[in-house]
Amino acid sequence: MASNPQFLAATAQVDEAAIAPLPNSQKVYVIGSRADIRVPMREITQDDTPVMMGAEKNPPIYVYDTSGPYTDPTVKIDIRSGLAPIRQAWIDARKDTELLSGPTSRFGQERLADPKLAQLRFNLHRQPRRAKSGQNVSQMHYAKKGMVTPEMEFIAIRENLRRQEYLKSLEAMGEKGKRMIELLTRQHPGQSFGAVIPSEITPAFVRDEVARGRAIIPNNINHPESEPMIIGRNFLVKINGNIGNSAVTSSIAEEVDKMTWGIRWGADTIMDLSTGKHIHETREWIIRNSPVPIGTVPIYQALEKVDGKAEELTWELFRDTLIEQAEQGVDYFTIHAGVRLAYVPMTANRMTGIVSRGGSIMAKWCLAHHQENFLYTHFEDICEIMKAYDVAFSLGDGLRPGSIWDANDEAQLGELKTLGELTQIAWKHDVQTMIEGPGHVPMQLIKENMDLQLDWCDEAPFYTLGPLTTDIAPGYDHITSAIGAAQIGWYGTAMLCYVTPKEHLGLPNKEDVKAGIIAYKIAAHAADLAKGHPGAQVRDNALSKARFEFRWNDQFNLGLDPDTAKAYHDETLPKESMKVAHFCSMCGPHFCSMKITQDVKDYAKQKGLAEEEALQKGMQEKSIEFVKTGAKVYHRQ
Amino acid sequence: MASNPQFLAATAQVDEAAIAPLPNSQKVYVIGSRADIRVPMREITQDDTPVMMGAEKNPPIYVYDTSGPYTDPTVKIDIRSGLAPIRQAWIDARKDTELLSGPTSRFGQERLADPKLAQLRFNLHRQPRRAKSGQNVSQMHYAKKGMVTPEMEFIAIRENLRRQEYLKSLEAMGEKGKRMIELLTRQHPGQSFGAVIPSEITPAFVRDEVARGRAIIPNNINHPESEPMIIGRNFLVKINGNIGNSAVTSSIAEEVDKMTWGIRWGADTIMDLSTGKHIHETREWIIRNSPVPIGTVPIYQALEKVDGKAEELTWELFRDTLIEQAEQGVDYFTIHAGVRLAYVPMTANRMTGIVSRGGSIMAKWCLAHHQENFLYTHFEDICEIMKAYDVAFSLGDGLRPGSIWDANDEAQLGELKTLGELTQIAWKHDVQTMIEGPGHVPMQLIKENMDLQLDWCDEAPFYTLGPLTTDIAPGYDHITSAIGAAQIGWYGTAMLCYVTPKEHLGLPNKEDVKAGIIAYKIAAHAADLAKGHPGAQVRDNALSKARFEFRWNDQFNLGLDPDTAKAYHDETLPKESMKVAHFCSMCGPHFCSMKITQDVKDYAKQKGLAEEEALQKGMQEKSIEFVKTGAKVYHRQ
Repeated sequence: MASNPQFLAATAQVDEAAIAPLPNSQKVYVIGSRADIRVPMREITQDDTPVMMGAEKNPPIYVYDTSGPYTDPTVKIDIRSGLAPIRQAWIDARKDTELLSGPTSRFGQERLADPKLAQLRFNLHRQPRRAKSGQNVSQMHYAKKGMVTPEMEFIAIRENLRRQEYLKSLEAMGEKGKRMIELLTRQHPGQSFGAVIPSEITPAFVRDEVARGRAIIPNNINHPESEPMIIGRNFLVKINGNIGNSAVTSSIAEEVDKMTWGIRWGADTIMDLSTGKHIHETREWIIRNSPVPIGTVPIYQALEKVDGKAEELTWELFRDTLIEQAEQGVDYFTIHAGVRLAYVPMTANRMTGIVSRGGSIMAKWCLAHHQENFLYTHFEDICEIMKAYDVAFSLGDGLRPGSIWDANDEAQLGELKTLGELTQIAWKHDVQTMIEGPGHVPMQLIKENMDLQLDWCDEAPFYTLGPLTTDIAPGYDHITSAIGAAQIGWYGTAMLCYVTPKEHLGLPNKEDVKAGIIAYKIAAHAADLAKGHPGAQVRDNALSKARFEFRWNDQFNLGLDPDTAKAYHDETLPKESMKVAHFCSMCGPHFCSMKITQDVKDYAKQKGLAEEEALQKGMQEKSIEFVKTGAKVYHRQ
Repeated sequence: MASNPQFLAATAQVDEAAIAPLPNSQKVYVIGSRADIRVPMREITQDDTPVMMGAEKNPPIYVYDTSGPYTDPTVKIDIRSGLAPIRQAWIDARKDTELLSGPTSRFGQERLADPKLAQLRFNLHRQPRRAKSGQNVSQMHYAKKGMVTPEMEFIAIRENLRRQEYLKSLEAMGEKGKRMIELLTRQHPGQSFGAVIPSEITPAFVRDEVARGRAIIPNNINHPESEPMIIGRNFLVKINGNIGNSAVTSSIAEEVDKMTWGIRWGADTIMDLSTGKHIHETREWIIRNSPVPIGTVPIYQALEKVDGKAEELTWELFRDTLIEQAEQGVDYFTIHAGVRLAYVPMTANRMTGIVSRGGSIMAKWCLAHHQENFLYTHFEDICEIMKAYDVAFSLGDGLRPGSIWDANDEAQLGELKTLGELTQIAWKHDVQTMIEGPGHVPMQLIKENMDLQLDWCDEAPFYTLGPLTTDIAPGYDHITSAIGAAQIGWYGTAMLCYVTPKEHLGLPNKEDVKAGIIAYKIAAHAADLAKGHPGAQVRDNALSKARFEFRWNDQFNLGLDPDTAKAYHDETLPKESMKVAHFCSMCGPHFCSMKITQDVKDYAKQKGLAEEEALQKGMQEKSIEFVKTGAKVYHRQ
């Protein structure tokens, strides 16, 4: 264990920094139609408005919470035991699965039997599970049969964020409540480009979207610890965080830490892209401790198994890898089945060739054998595996552009068309499917990507990496790509794969993971606002109201990263008394426009007039004067 | 000098970190039609392509250079003397100005006569200058008369970035050069929304754009140290960096440091928003040492002069302040003349009232006096001052929205319409004019801002703050706003005012200034790409080529921030030998897709075939097989 000296399964511990509740926040659970549907939300409580500004109570704000049980102080966290299998009873009740005596993949069996791995291994007592012969256990299959699963109900509650209850509590406040409703919930009409988001998400709506293929619920029956979530353009825009060691650096403990850290800040799914030793063991630790769906790129591990020699990959070895990972509980697989032999020559004159790891592996295999991609030729065999565990497809864009120059070229678009054809086949098997997208794309070409994807892939959810809108800022690609991500999210992308500041330069550390997550939460939320997702603006409005009322702590706490906001403020004004000061160090006390606006209001009050009357009075006087002087728009004085 | 204990004029020094040339970069000057038109550019030299990939010489790349003489090692920098007055001879030659015996503003005279300020004062020997009676010295005036000034020629050369010479040097390389031209210069067609950018900028084009009011050249005759630059939507998108102390923190030395630091990373103009003591002296130091135009908001200083009591402001005091600053050399003034009394009541029901400092000051004045804004009623008087020094208007958006909720409301749009009317008046006086814009705007409302501005303000350049696309990320508003800035820049905004991570939280330090500048250079460049600015993609392509060829140092050096890119890379692979390694720590050696793509190419070579032939051969064999099996798009195997 030279590469991982600190890690011993017997003493593994969660990073304490990742589990404290965020300031003024508590985990609440909304109970569904049955007691075991407990949907987590983060409730952020607020201070009252200062007396001079009205003294009203500001209701708590509910935000989507991806952090799982980690931020619930009533739950004892022990990563050696993993999280509670909250979906187990739902899976059992469907009676369409069976327990296996152990892993059925050859590789899974070998690893389990290897005594040298004992100190690394997560100690799982549960047996893997698989669909009974002839059964299909995908949520799409249930949806097409008209079933509303507990998972779907969970999601409906989760997406609504207690909006109706929140409105009712405001209504109960009477006259002031009505003003608060206006102030805290109104938003601008969106521009949705065809997305149709109801004002309240119902379980039936969730079902219908999944049945139609417009949304997916990635939750493998072997990952019962996961809290159901949905990816589709008629829901909140989601983000994915990548973690994963490489041969050069990092360890199991670091990757588990990155996962808990990533979900703390808002990752809706995590992809484990590990490529070093011990991929199998690392993955087990991550899945057992993850409340969010886990995605992988199985070809990475397959390549490890043939010592990095792409040409030695075989369908049989790949198939064993899929089963190995499906039985561990991976929720979605990136499969580069669209890298067809015919497209590979189209990349020869590119600026940056093939930049997808999986894409380049498959291209190498195709050329070495002068054969069609085996992922393509075995696609229906893969579907059979997917539906036996409810693993979702994330059809990989192995030929995505790696530079602005290569954007939207024939290789990329050829592959996208193939992914659309494969989507139809996956759907024939009731296998949930999303489509991966670029990459590096200048702004004026982003919408074309989205429009072609919707058309060719029949509205299957789009899952894009960025896109990066310029190549000239290594070290800042979380920003070059957040610009593109916000736009493509607005246009209809369902999930945004984050990019960290280390992109193109090195393996991200925890700080980079957080920087990437926050940049992408911004992009996703900006997209929700622009699409007109109902209630998306509640949080913006609450934060802006806090800002106007100089409730500094609320301003920090309602933000995506309270710690950083507070630290920045405190750099120049650390004293606690400054948390109610009517200015900050940016402008100082005399120049705070918010303060001056308050002064304007106060001035009107002193004059013994209601504020607007005062303003109107001034206006009338002025109007008379305007008429006298001829009401010219402009006149010299 | 309690607030500024270290600063003594006699010993002031430039920050050494801000003047070293960037890695592999040297300052070059392109000489115009006369020897004293010396246009600076940064030449970034590159390594040769590795032998196994072709061994070609990679030509140097020329980038726009805002850093002035600071990064020229042949220039001796002494901030106590200020920069050389490179435009002095051009101004003299026009013979339409006269030297004054000293400041003509009362305040300027008082400060000069105050012995207590001696240790703070920049020791300027030059006398201030003003247009001769009856003369108009604005570049717009010259342009309308058909003159091409040296400033205009300078700008034409600067905007072209040696593109023609670069192409010629590539052509001279023969067959390989042709391929390089394709590889390094081709770009995607832009979507320009009405901008018309010629493939080569000529001095006459610059003149015509200025005459039409579609672009401005901010350069006060009292700031002869400035290197001419242009702001208009048919030119490269520019960015502004704000600096300025507040009463709470910071000193003269820090603000001069922030200026040199800001231009090092790419600020095209600097606004000095100081509001503390010694505004006058701080400004003098900044202007004398700034090669970029300096903007101010004169009402801030006027307010200081009446001890923060907005209602005590008078036209006479404001007029004196304008003259004071114009004679110091401020290049553009933000004037909040559009905050009309009639609009103030429209802000009463806003979420965040009035968030512009200048806007709130004028609103308070209007209400206190129940009179129309004196900046509006005296607008033509202000024009008279502007044209006597060639100060440009930046018509302030005092009623810009401070939250998503308040975006595009009647107060904001009412003011914008007034700014359009004022533009016509300014143009009547041949005063150069740009228009300030929001603020906080969700994505779907950004284009409306741009379209209305172009329409109502008759294509006068738009200069926007962000806009921020969500309110929920204090600590990250450089990102929330870079998203909006890239879009509005694409739609036609000519200059983007940066936002730092400290926005809403505190005064930015140097690190924040850099973070804001880089985020905005990204937004501006993404906009240039999307608009199809000719040659915008040269740098992206060069960097991507370096990336594909594992020229790590070139990859760092061609980026916006070589220091950070290198530091990130070196965190995991610090050894110098790794600067030519064919992988990084992100994926490790086996999984680098770029490496695998190279392997694919090498594989083809080994087979003794030209690369594409090899691919084609494979394809043909495959095609035959496809036909045999019935050429079905998908078939099981």
